[in-house]
Amino acid sequence: MSSDPFFHPVSGFDLPRFAGVPTFMRLPHVAPGHDRFEEVDIGVIGVPWDSGTTNRPGPRHGPRQLRDASTMIRAQHASNGMRPFEMVNCADLGDVGPNPADIQDSMARITAFYNEVRVAGIRPLTAGGDHLTSLPVLRALAKDGPLGMVHFDSHTDLFHSYFDGTMYTHGTPFRRAVEEGLLDPKRVVQIGIRGTMYDREDRDFAKAEGIRIIEIEEFFDRGIPDVMAEAREIAGKGPTYVSYDIDFVDPTFAPGTGTPEVGGPNSYQALQVCRELHGLNIVGADMVEVSPPFDASGNTAFLGVSIMFELLCAMLARP
Amino acid sequence: MSSDPFFHPVSGFDLPRFAGVPTFMRLPHVAPGHDRFEEVDIGVIGVPWDSGTTNRPGPRHGPRQLRDASTMIRAQHASNGMRPFEMVNCADLGDVGPNPADIQDSMARITAFYNEVRVAGIRPLTAGGDHLTSLPVLRALAKDGPLGMVHFDSHTDLFHSYFDGTMYTHGTPFRRAVEEGLLDPKRVVQIGIRGTMYDREDRDFAKAEGIRIIEIEEFFDRGIPDVMAEAREIAGKGPTYVSYDIDFVDPTFAPGTGTPEVGGPNSYQALQVCRELHGLNIVGADMVEVSPPFDASGNTAFLGVSIMFELLCAMLARP
Amino acid sequence: MSSDPFFHPVSGFDLPRFAGVPTFMRLPHVAPGHDRFEEVDIGVIGVPWDSGTTNRPGPRHGPRQLRDASTMIRAQHASNGMRPFEMVNCADLGDVGPNPADIQDSMARITAFYNEVRVAGIRPLTAGGDHLTSLPVLRALAKDGPLGMVHFDSHTDLFHSYFDGTMYTHGTPFRRAVEEGLLDPKRVVQIGIRGTMYDREDRDFAKAEGIRIIEIEEFFDRGIPDVMAEAREIAGKGPTYVSYDIDFVDPTFAPGTGTPEVGGPNSYQALQVCRELHGLNIVGADMVEVSPPFDASGNTAFLGVSIMFELLCAMLARP
Amino acid sequence: MSSDPFFHPVSGFDLPRFAGVPTFMRLPHVAPGHDRFEEVDIGVIGVPWDSGTTNRPGPRHGPRQLRDASTMIRAQHASNGMRPFEMVNCADLGDVGPNPADIQDSMARITAFYNEVRVAGIRPLTAGGDHLTSLPVLRALAKDGPLGMVHFDSHTDLFHSYFDGTMYTHGTPFRRAVEEGLLDPKRVVQIGIRGTMYDREDRDFAKAEGIRIIEIEEFFDRGIPDVMAEAREIAGKGPTYVSYDIDFVDPTFAPGTGTPEVGGPNSYQALQVCRELHGLNIVGADMVEVSPPFDASGNTAFLGVSIMFELLCAMLARP
Amino acid sequence: MSSDPFFHPVSGFDLPRFAGVPTFMRLPHVAPGHDRFEEVDIGVIGVPWDSGTTNRPGPRHGPRQLRDASTMIRAQHASNGMRPFEMVNCADLGDVGPNPADIQDSMARITAFYNEVRVAGIRPLTAGGDHLTSLPVLRALAKDGPLGMVHFDSHTDLFHSYFDGTMYTHGTPFRRAVEEGLLDPKRVVQIGIRGTMYDREDRDFAKAEGIRIIEIEEFFDRGIPDVMAEAREIAGKGPTYVSYDIDFVDPTFAPGTGTPEVGGPNSYQALQVCRELHGLNIVGADMVEVSPPFDASGNTAFLGVSIMFELLCAMLARP
Amino acid sequence: MSSDPFFHPVSGFDLPRFAGVPTFMRLPHVAPGHDRFEEVDIGVIGVPWDSGTTNRPGPRHGPRQLRDASTMIRAQHASNGMRPFEMVNCADLGDVGPNPADIQDSMARITAFYNEVRVAGIRPLTAGGDHLTSLPVLRALAKDGPLGMVHFDSHTDLFHSYFDGTMYTHGTPFRRAVEEGLLDPKRVVQIGIRGTMYDREDRDFAKAEGIRIIEIEEFFDRGIPDVMAEAREIAGKGPTYVSYDIDFVDPTFAPGTGTPEVGGPNSYQALQVCRELHGLNIVGADMVEVSPPFDASGNTAFLGVSIMFELLCAMLARP
Repeated sequence: MSSDPFFHPVSGFDLPRFAGVPTFMRLPHVAPGHDRFEEVDIGVIGVPWDSGTTNRPGPRHGPRQLRDASTMIRAQHASNGMRPFEMVNCADLGDVGPNPADIQDSMARITAFYNEVRVAGIRPLTAGGDHLTSLPVLRALAKDGPLGMVHFDSHTDLFHSYFDGTMYTHGTPFRRAVEEGLLDPKRVVQIGIRGTMYDREDRDFAKAEGIRIIEIEEFFDRGIPDVMAEAREIAGKGPTYVSYDIDFVDPTFAPGTGTPEVGGPNSYQALQVCRELHGLNIVGADMVEVSPPFDASGNTAFLGVSIMFELLCAMLARP
Repeated sequence: MSSDPFFHPVSGFDLPRFAGVPTFMRLPHVAPGHDRFEEVDIGVIGVPWDSGTTNRPGPRHGPRQLRDASTMIRAQHASNGMRPFEMVNCADLGDVGPNPADIQDSMARITAFYNEVRVAGIRPLTAGGDHLTSLPVLRALAKDGPLGMVHFDSHTDLFHSYFDGTMYTHGTPFRRAVEEGLLDPKRVVQIGIRGTMYDREDRDFAKAEGIRIIEIEEFFDRGIPDVMAEAREIAGKGPTYVSYDIDFVDPTFAPGTGTPEVGGPNSYQALQVCRELHGLNIVGADMVEVSPPFDASGNTAFLGVSIMFELLCAMLARP
Repeated sequence: MSSDPFFHPVSGFDLPRFAGVPTFMRLPHVAPGHDRFEEVDIGVIGVPWDSGTTNRPGPRHGPRQLRDASTMIRAQHASNGMRPFEMVNCADLGDVGPNPADIQDSMARITAFYNEVRVAGIRPLTAGGDHLTSLPVLRALAKDGPLGMVHFDSHTDLFHSYFDGTMYTHGTPFRRAVEEGLLDPKRVVQIGIRGTMYDREDRDFAKAEGIRIIEIEEFFDRGIPDVMAEAREIAGKGPTYVSYDIDFVDPTFAPGTGTPEVGGPNSYQALQVCRELHGLNIVGADMVEVSPPFDASGNTAFLGVSIMFELLCAMLARP
Repeated sequence: MSSDPFFHPVSGFDLPRFAGVPTFMRLPHVAPGHDRFEEVDIGVIGVPWDSGTTNRPGPRHGPRQLRDASTMIRAQHASNGMRPFEMVNCADLGDVGPNPADIQDSMARITAFYNEVRVAGIRPLTAGGDHLTSLPVLRALAKDGPLGMVHFDSHTDLFHSYFDGTMYTHGTPFRRAVEEGLLDPKRVVQIGIRGTMYDREDRDFAKAEGIRIIEIEEFFDRGIPDVMAEAREIAGKGPTYVSYDIDFVDPTFAPGTGTPEVGGPNSYQALQVCRELHGLNIVGADMVEVSPPFDASGNTAFLGVSIMFELLCAMLARP
Repeated sequence: MSSDPFFHPVSGFDLPRFAGVPTFMRLPHVAPGHDRFEEVDIGVIGVPWDSGTTNRPGPRHGPRQLRDASTMIRAQHASNGMRPFEMVNCADLGDVGPNPADIQDSMARITAFYNEVRVAGIRPLTAGGDHLTSLPVLRALAKDGPLGMVHFDSHTDLFHSYFDGTMYTHGTPFRRAVEEGLLDPKRVVQIGIRGTMYDREDRDFAKAEGIRIIEIEEFFDRGIPDVMAEAREIAGKGPTYVSYDIDFVDPTFAPGTGTPEVGGPNSYQALQVCRELHGLNIVGADMVEVSPPFDASGNTAFLGVSIMFELLCAMLARP
Repeated sequence: MSSDPFFHPVSGFDLPRFAGVPTFMRLPHVAPGHDRFEEVDIGVIGVPWDSGTTNRPGPRHGPRQLRDASTMIRAQHASNGMRPFEMVNCADLGDVGPNPADIQDSMARITAFYNEVRVAGIRPLTAGGDHLTSLPVLRALAKDGPLGMVHFDSHTDLFHSYFDGTMYTHGTPFRRAVEEGLLDPKRVVQIGIRGTMYDREDRDFAKAEGIRIIEIEEFFDRGIPDVMAEAREIAGKGPTYVSYDIDFVDPTFAPGTGTPEVGGPNSYQALQVCRELHGLNIVGADMVEVSPPFDASGNTAFLGVSIMFELLCAMLARP
C-alpha cells in the first residue's frame, strides 16, 4: 500500500498553492476512460447539483469552490502524521454531469457514474451537491446489501415528502435509502441534530426503524470521545458510509450552506469527530451542502476540504 | 379611472421607507380570496422560482428582495408626472407558491394562479423567478389567442432543448410559447441580444418564424427612439406582453443575475426603453432573473423595481 | 390556551420558506386597528430606529432584515417540544413609525404604540432598533410599578450622558429607566458585560443602586446553569422585562451590530441562556442592536430571530 | 501663489500609497490651534455626521473612508496639468466633532468650526456627512451676503419638512438656506435631478424662487459643455458655493450612498462637470452623502476623492 | 486551419457550465511535456504573479479566477460568427510557476516557459499577473527583433524606477522593454491613459522615443473606430503584441484591480476595441492586473475572459 | 510612571469614535524627528509590508486597517482595570516605509527604523505586515544578545527555505533569527501550531534546537492557565519578544489572513493568552498577518487591535 508518484499532489514548495489548474488537493485529474483510472484506490468526485434543495440553492457550485480551496491542503495530517497520498493512489475523477432541470435524469447519471467507480474498485470521496446526492450514490455502493452510516448533520433528512407528495428532495434521501434497503437503520447514527422543527414525523420514523439520533445537547453534554465511541459501536464492522452535511457545523464557521441552524459545533470539533472514525470499514464518504453563493469569504469551502482531508485519512485507517 | 385610497401606498413622509412589512411598492397585500381582490386593476405578483435555471441559481429569492427594494419607490414618475397608484387600483397579490423540486407541478400552480388573476380582470405585473416563469404565465394570459411581445434580454430564450432533450428550462420558454400558440411570432421583437453563442439554432428558429431580433450592436447604433419605434410597430395594436430579463442590462449595473453577458445597456437606457412602450395594449409584464445571491449590494433589485415602476406606468399609457 | 388557526404561521411544507410577504415568523400581520387586534396574546413589533446610536448606525434596518430571516423559523422548539404558535395567539403587529430626525418625537411615538398594545392585553416581543428603544417601551410597560429585568449585553447602558450632556443615547437607557422608576434596580441583572472601558462611572452607579453585573469572565467561569439560576433569583416572581442586545454574543457570531466587543458567548450559549428563563413572569422582551449594514451575510439576523423564538417560548413558560 | 514644502503631500514614489497615517490626500494634519493654521489657503475638513438622514444612514463614516481612499490621489491633474498642492498651501484640518444624538448641537458645532476657518482666510473643501451638513457650513460662509451655488445631485433637497413638521433633514437644507438668506436663489442651479417623486412641492418652491433645475434628461440631451456653460452663467461672478452630492452619480458607479436614484451620470461625466467650473469664484465646496456601510468595495469613496481633487483644482481656477 | 476535436471545449449543453475541473474556456489542459503540446496553435497560459505591484496586491490569484469565470464562455463570437476553437488547436497550457519572493527568479522562469512555447510554434494568450509579467514574456517573443504593441491601459507603465532605484515594478515594464530592444517605440500605441499623475517623466520618455499616447479624453472625443484605425496604422504589418491591462476599463466595470483610475471606458467599449484589431499580425497577447481579492462579485474576471475571447478571435483575424 | 496628557488618546465621549484622523488608539502621531519623540515610552509602529508572503497577499494593508479599527479601543482594560495610556507615554510612531518590490531593501529600512526606536528607549508594539517583519525587527532589538520569545501562531515559521532556495519568506523568519543569534531557542515557545503539513523539517529543527512547540490539541487539553504558566517559565526573566500571528486564532474569528488553518482558539481565548503574559520582561511585541483584502467586515482588524491593547497592557505588567 504505497502510492505511485503519478498520484502525488503538487507541493506548495514547488508550485505556490494559488497557482495551477485546481484539481482536488492538487491530485491528477483521472476521469473515467483515462488509462490509469483502474489504478485509483480513492477517487475524489464532484457532484455539482442542487435540484433537491427546498430552500436556498447553490450547492451545484460546491465542487468548483471546494477544488479551489483544496489547493491549500498539504501532504501530511497534523496530529497523526498520516501521509495519505503516499499510502494509496488518490485522484480527482472529475464531476458527474447532472441535468439541472431533471431530478430523475440526474440521479440516474450519478448512480451510473458511481457504478463505474465501484466496479473499478475505487472508493469514492464525494464533494456535493445537496444532500439528495447521497441517495443515488448509495444506490451504487449498496449493491451487496445495506450499509451502516455515520451521519453528521443538523437535520435528519428522514422526511417522507415535501410540498404535497414530492418524494425526492434534500430532506428525504435517507428515508428513501432505508425504504430501498440501501441502509441498515440499526447501523445508522445521526449526530448534531438541532434547530426548530416542523413536527416529529422524521423522529417517529427514526424511532420505528431503530435509527439512533444524537441531538446537539447530548453531543455537547457527553463530549466527542464518548459520542463517537457509541457511533463506532452502532456502525460496527460492516461496510459503512460516512455522510457529512456541512450544516452540522455552526453557521458562523460554515455560512455557505442553504439551511443553516445556529448553535452547532465549532471548526475544531468539526475535525475532531472525523478523527474518531478510526476502525470503521468506510466504503465511501461525502461532504455535502457547501453553497458558494452564501460563502462570500470562501471559508466554508476551506473548512469543507479540511474535513474532506480528515475523511480521507479516516478511510485509510481501516480495521 | 381614479383609485380607492385603500390601494394607495404608504408615503415615506408618513412612515420612513425602511419601516414596515415590505409589500411591493408599499401597496396593500390583497391575496386571492381577500374581499377586495376583485377590485384590483393591476396586481403585482411574485413567482419565487428558479427550477428552470441551467446555470447559476437564485431567482427564487427575487420577489423577496424586490419587495424590500421596492419600498424606495415613491408615488410619481419623474419625467412624465404620472401618479399610477392614484389612476387605478394597484395591489400586491402575494407570491405563487412553487414546488422547488417539481417543474411541471410548479408550472401548473403558476398557470392556475394567473388564470384566477385573469378571470378577476386584473392585469399582472410579475416579479420572477427565472425566465421559464413567463411560459406558465403566458398560458393563462393567452386564452383568447396569441399575444405579441416586446422582449428585453441578452438571450433569445428560443432554444429547442438542453441536456439531451430537456424541454423546459429558462432557455426555452419562448420556443415553447410559439409552439403552443401563445405568442404570434410575427408580433414578437427581442431587443439587446448579445454574448458568446453555442450555435445559431435559436436564430434559425427566429428567422423561420419571423421573430425580429435586434442585437446590441444595432441597438446602440440606431439609438433607443428609433429601435423602440420599430418595436411598437411590430407589436402593433393587439394584446401584447412585455418580458424584461434583467440580464438585458449590463451586468455591472445588474450583477444579480445568473447568466450575465457583458457589454449591455446602462441603467439610464434600461429605464428609457420602458418609456417608449407607450401606446401598446399591454396585458401583462414581467421582470425576471433577478438573483439576490449574486447581488450583494441589493442594487440589482433596486434597478429591477425601478424598471417595474416604469412598466407599471407603461401599462397605464394604453392606446 | 390554544390558538386560533388564523394566528398560525404558514408552513414551509406548504409554501417554501423563501416565498411570500415576510412577516415575523410568517404570522398574520395584525396592526393596531385590525379587527382581530384585541385577540392577540403576544405581538411581535418592529421598532426601526437608531437615533440613539453614538457609534456605527444601522439598527433602523433591523426589523426589516429580522422579518426576512424569520421565515426560516419553524413551528416547534427543538429541545423542549413547545409549539408556541399553537399555545397562544401570536401576530406581527407591524412597525412603530419613528421620526429618524427627532429623538423625543420618536420616543413619544413608541410609548404611545406600546400603551395601545398594553391596554389590549398583548405582551410585546420587540425587534429593535438600537438600545434606546427599551426606554420608551418600558415607559409603557411599567405603568403599574417598576419591573425587574434580565439584561444580556456586553455593555451596561447605564451611563449618565454623552457628548457633554446628551441624556438620551443607546448608552443611557437603563440609567434613565432607574431614575424614572421604570426598573427596580434590585431586581435587575446584567450578564455578559465586557470590553475596554471609558471609566467606571456606570459600574459605580450600578453598585450604588444594587444592580448586579455579571461580567464575561464570571459568566464563563461559573457556567450558564449557575449564572442563570442567580438571574432568576434576582428577577424573582414579579413582572420582569428581558432585554437582549445582540452584542452580548461574540461579534464573530453576530457581526451585524454597531458596538461589538470581542470575546463573547457563542451561538449555542446565546440560545441556552434563554432556555434558562423559565419560571419568570415576563411582561415583554426585546432583541436590539441588530444592524444589517454590518451584516453582509444576514447571519446576525438569523441568529437574532432564533433568539427571538427562544424568548417567545420563554414568555410562554410562565410560572 | 506657490506653496510651502511643509504643505506638500507625501509622494507614492517615496512612501507607498498604502502606507502611513491617512490624512486627506496625504497632506499635513493642521487642526485649528496648530501653529501653521493661519498659513493654510485651502483646508480639507471632515464632517462625520448623518443625523439628518431620513433613509439609510452611514455618511458619518464618510470622512474616514474618504481619507483612506484619498491616499491614491497623486500630485498632478491628468488633463490640465495643474499641480494644486504646489500652487497654494493645502492641509487636512481634521474633523468637526459632531454630537450624533443632537442635531441642533451638531449644527452649532459645525458653524463654529467653519467660522474659525473663514476668519483665518481658509477656503474649505468639505467631506461630509449627509447633505444637511451644507446648511451649517453655509451659515458660516455666507456672512457677507447670500451666495450662488452650483449643486450636483439627484434630489433638490428643497423640501419644506418631513414627518409632520421636522425642519432639519438632509432633504431640506437648501430650503432653509434660501429662507435664511444664505443662498441667492437666482444664482442657484441644480443639476442631475431625477428619480421617483413624492410630489412637486420642492419644484414649486424652486420655481417660485427662481432656482434653475436641470433634470437628468435635459442634462443628457444637451451635453455637459452646454449645461455647464449655463451653470456658470447662473452662478455668475459673485461668491459661489459648490455642493456635490455623490448620489448625482449613477448608483452603479457610487453605490455607497443612502438614497440612490438609478439612471445617472457615469464616472467620466462625474469628473467632467467639475472641469467646467472654471472661472467661478468658489468660496467653498463639499462632497456629501458618501456612505461607507453601503460601499463594500470602497469604490464610491475613491470616486468621491477623485471628484474632490477636481473640485480643489476648480477652486484654484478662479477668475 | 481546422482544429482537432481533442482541442474543442466542452459544451454547456453537454455539461453545465458550473461543472468540471475549470481550465481556460473548458479547453484541454496540455502542459509542456504533454504528448500533444506540439500540436497546439494558440496556448492560454496563466502567470500567477504580482511581485511587481507597488500598490494593492492580488493579481497572483488572477489566473485561477479567470479560469473559473472562463467556463461561461461559449463557442461562437456574437457579432462576427467566428468559432475560434474550431479554426485552430487551442489549449490551456497551465501556469508558469513563479517564485513569489524573488522577482528575478520569477522573470527567468517566465521567460524560460515562453521560450518553450515560442519554439513549439505556439502563440501565447496570457492571463496575468501584474503588468511586469509582460516584460519576461516579451523577452521570449521578441527573439527576432523588436515588436510593435497595441497597449490598452490607464497608465503608461513607462516609468524609469520606483522607491529610489527599483527598476522592475509593474510601472516600468515597457521602459525596460524599449531599453532592451524588445519593442519598437515607433510601433507602440498606448490607449486610455488617464488619472492623476506624479509628474511627466513617463510622458517625456514616450515623446522622446516616439511612443504614441492616446489619452482618455481623445479616446472619447474621436470614438473607437477612428482611434483604432490609427492604432492599426501605428502597429503596422510587423509582428505585434497586444497588452490589455484591465484597469483600462472603468473601475466600476472592473473593480478587481490594484491601481484603478475612474473615468474609463465601459464594458461595451472594452470589447469593441478588440474587434478593431483585425488585420494585425499578433504574435501574442495578454490580459493583466485582474486582482480577485478586490473583485468580490467575480465580475471583473468575467469581463476579463470576455476580453480574452475577443483577443483570441483577433489573433485569428490575421492579415 | 504616569503619562503626560499630550500622550492621552482622545475620548469617544468627547469626539465620536468614528471621527478624526485615525492614528493607533487615537494616540498622537509622533514620528521620528518629532520634538517629543524621545519622551515616548511605548511606540506603536506600522510595517505595511507583505513581500515575504508565499500564499495570499495583503498584510501590507494591515496597519491602515488596524489604525481604523483601533479607534474603537477605549482607555481602560476590562478585567484588570489598567489604564495604560495614563501609566506611560504612548504614541503612534507612524509607518516604516517599505520597498514593496525589494525584500532586502525593505528589511534594511525596517531594521534602521527600529534601531532608532531602540536607541530612543522606546519599546515597540508593531502592527505588521507579514511574519517576515519580525526578523528585521529582532535584528534591531536583539543588539545585546539573544531574546526569548512567546510566539502565538498556527505555523512554526521555522522552515529552511522555499521554492528551491529562497531564504527570506514569512515561513522562515525564526529559522533565520535562531541562526543569526537573535533568539535563544531554549527560551522560545510556540503555541497553537496546527494544520496540514508539508513535512516535519521545521519540527526537526525545533527539536534539535530546543524550541518548545505546543500544538493545538495540547493547548485545548491542558487549558490556558497551565499552558501559559509553562510559557512564562520557558521565557523566563530575560528580555523577551512576543510575536502574535493573527492566524493563531481560528479563521472564523479572524478570516483576514493569508494562510488560515481551521480549528483554532476563539476570540475569548485569543485575549486570555495575553492576560497570562504578566511578569515577563517584554522588550517588544508584534501583531502580524492581518490581511484586509480577506477581511470584508473588518472584524479581523478589530480583534487584532483588541489583542494589541492586551499586549500593551502585558508590556506594562513587567516584573
